[in-house]
Amino acid sequence: MSSSPDPARSSVRLDRAIFNPGAVKINVKGAFIVDEDPRSKSPVRTDGVHYEGHDIRLPHHTGIVSHVAVDIGGSLAKLVYFTRELDSPDNGGRLNFINFETHRIDLCIEFIKELKEEHEKANGPSPDQLCVVATGGGAYKYYDKLKEALQVNIIREDEMECLITGLDFFITEIPNEIFTYSEIEPMQFAEARPDVYPYLLVNIGSGVSMIKVSGPKQYQRVGGTHLGGGTFWGIMSLLTGARTFDEMLAMADQGDNSGVDMLVGDIYGMDYNKIGLKSTAIASTFGKVFRLKSAAEQESGTEGDEADEESEQTNGDVTFKNEDMSRSLLYAISNNIGQIAYLQSEKQQVKHIYFGGSFIRGHRQTMNTLSYAIRFWSKGEKQAYFLRHEGYIGAVGAFLRRKPVNWGRRNSIDGASV
Amino acid sequence: MSSSPDPARSSVRLDRAIFNPGAVKINVKGAFIVDEDPRSKSPVRTDGVHYEGHDIRLPHHTGIVSHVAVDIGGSLAKLVYFTRELDSPDNGGRLNFINFETHRIDLCIEFIKELKEEHEKANGPSPDQLCVVATGGGAYKYYDKLKEALQVNIIREDEMECLITGLDFFITEIPNEIFTYSEIEPMQFAEARPDVYPYLLVNIGSGVSMIKVSGPKQYQRVGGTHLGGGTFWGIMSLLTGARTFDEMLAMADQGDNSGVDMLVGDIYGMDYNKIGLKSTAIASTFGKVFRLKSAAEQESGTEGDEADEESEQTNGDVTFKNEDMSRSLLYAISNNIGQIAYLQSEKQQVKHIYFGGSFIRGHRQTMNTLSYAIRFWSKGEKQAYFLRHEGYIGAVGAFLRRKPVNWGRRNSIDGASV
Repeated sequence: MSSSPDPARSSVRLDRAIFNPGAVKINVKGAFIVDEDPRSKSPVRTDGVHYEGHDIRLPHHTGIVSHVAVDIGGSLAKLVYFTRELDSPDNGGRLNFINFETHRIDLCIEFIKELKEEHEKANGPSPDQLCVVATGGGAYKYYDKLKEALQVNIIREDEMECLITGLDFFITEIPNEIFTYSEIEPMQFAEARPDVYPYLLVNIGSGVSMIKVSGPKQYQRVGGTHLGGGTFWGIMSLLTGARTFDEMLAMADQGDNSGVDMLVGDIYGMDYNKIGLKSTAIASTFGKVFRLKSAAEQESGTEGDEADEESEQTNGDVTFKNEDMSRSLLYAISNNIGQIAYLQSEKQQVKHIYFGGSFIRGHRQTMNTLSYAIRFWSKGEKQAYFLRHEGYIGAVGAFLRRKPVNWGRRNSIDGASV
Repeated sequence: MSSSPDPARSSVRLDRAIFNPGAVKINVKGAFIVDEDPRSKSPVRTDGVHYEGHDIRLPHHTGIVSHVAVDIGGSLAKLVYFTRELDSPDNGGRLNFINFETHRIDLCIEFIKELKEEHEKANGPSPDQLCVVATGGGAYKYYDKLKEALQVNIIREDEMECLITGLDFFITEIPNEIFTYSEIEPMQFAEARPDVYPYLLVNIGSGVSMIKVSGPKQYQRVGGTHLGGGTFWGIMSLLTGARTFDEMLAMADQGDNSGVDMLVGDIYGMDYNKIGLKSTAIASTFGKVFRLKSAAEQESGTEGDEADEESEQTNGDVTFKNEDMSRSLLYAISNNIGQIAYLQSEKQQVKHIYFGGSFIRGHRQTMNTLSYAIRFWSKGEKQAYFLRHEGYIGAVGAFLRRKPVNWGRRNSIDGASV
């Protein structure tokens, strides 16, 4: 359907889109988030796939979109695709969000294959065949696999650049997307700001990246930490046998971290007033384990009895509740990220801190901890911002960095620049 | 033996010593570290007690010292006491270092009781009966217990102030105490600096405190993290069944963290050149666990089979090596502390960073990680400093903050100010 089926010219146009991401246009007029039960969607398969329930409706976009975007991280592959809704009163369409476990990339590929077939069914054979914009490490690691299995063009985009494009889009274009969080005022939607830059983006996936963004094309990865979502999942699955992230988060909701954490009161027997540490403050994550395990060993009289190999089974009499361990580690990892993010924001002289990535998952304790950490360390000067599509920032960015080939013809008037 | 047995006057003198810590004098002329096998000491008991092998010899101090100092932390109680060496050619004496597990505080009390008896045997009944200077949280938590069991005067000193007094002493008075560390140049002793302040002291015990010190009496706890030694011990003992810190460190020496950590190469399949991340860089601590466990579950066909309660036992077929887990967590915790310490040093505009606390234990990997983190983040501008008595900074500080009552009489000439 393109006016120019010449591959050489297509490629020039493509290059322009890649090298001029700021110039990519999408019709986001009147865009809004659709809240519905993700189970109402008919999944291709149920295992290793997670449908999100917050589609973004683009009521004024009627053109054909001939690409999907996928952000393949260490643990999850996040997919964003557009579907037209010709039967809806305002026509238009929506952005759909779905993720797959990265080690089951085959499921993701199968899903994209179906989208490709649907695209061909709807639009007939044309030079505008579906292409895939891929970002994240998996865009490199699985490049050959994707290309071979899908037989489509795979355009690779840099992970950091996609994150920025995606976040800028969410900040400036989507109402009720960005919010602050506190126990007293959960989910206060933030007003769109005209002065978006500079900001610090803290993306929490398996690991954590912190990116200072000074302008649409000005950014620097200033730091990060490898204590991230993968650490929580890994240690928790080994300690508790829990299988899914949601299971672990549900346990954390029921736990009491003081069952495993050493509090200031455990050391002092009271507040440590001189430096303002309350007795309930955490002194050492999992710090109670040493004392309780050693005390139990002492009582059972096995310590020092190193020849007895079986004692390892019989002494560890103290058991720690899965819920308590889960709450402790979730708090520790979130709080640690919060502290480092604050310190980086100070070093980089940035006031606004956005937290994204699949680790957050809209979980209250996580957001509360991150939010509290920023308020606490900054003495109320700074705030943490969250996103409803926190896991899809990079994928949406990748989606937006590809200009659909037929876009200019049908949407030249009402496209908003992102 | 004091010239003034009047308790009221003693107490005035005591107050002066407490409130004027900078004025406390100790004869450290020619002090040096004695390296000998700690096993050559005859221990009272062997369980839960750890003798150090780096006594400090004070060849010119001949006076009676009628106090011992103990720093009771969340996991360890560190004891410093002075012994005279009347049979040695130069007379004098030495500072001894020993620690006990805090949950076995009774052993520590028993040990102090023996010191008290020896003191009485040597000096006869006198108003200079042994007293105990106590610091750390346990000085509060176990105050009544110590007082009742020992029947001696217990003087409490603030933990942060003791750390500073102790570190200042080590920096300025003890040769071959402070060193820098790198793989290429392990243990390079630092020259004594005339301009000691300001510095950042990072004390790593069960938890971590970071203290900015601007002068002998000017300090502020600027931060810390509860991911410390207690976290390493706690999680490792639960995951591996190892019982002692030394056992865990020995395992770490044999491990390969890439057995459990997700590396950049695991995500990208190559370096992530654009932002300078090598494929061998750690992306997510324990981040490989998710992928490997999920893949194993998928193969054994148990996923989604939630009714089968027994599957939890049968599926977790992947096992991770204790050595690999230990190395990974030791690295993660050390590196995290290193990063936060660097960022705090930036915020506080401090160039010198001292790492102390029992977590370090002279362990190569730990020191190398901390050292590398400071060099890496500061682009070579800053350095990490370590101490041979890293675990005893607070205890030594507490020891020095008490002026022995007979001190002035015998050592008024050659005492050096600390």
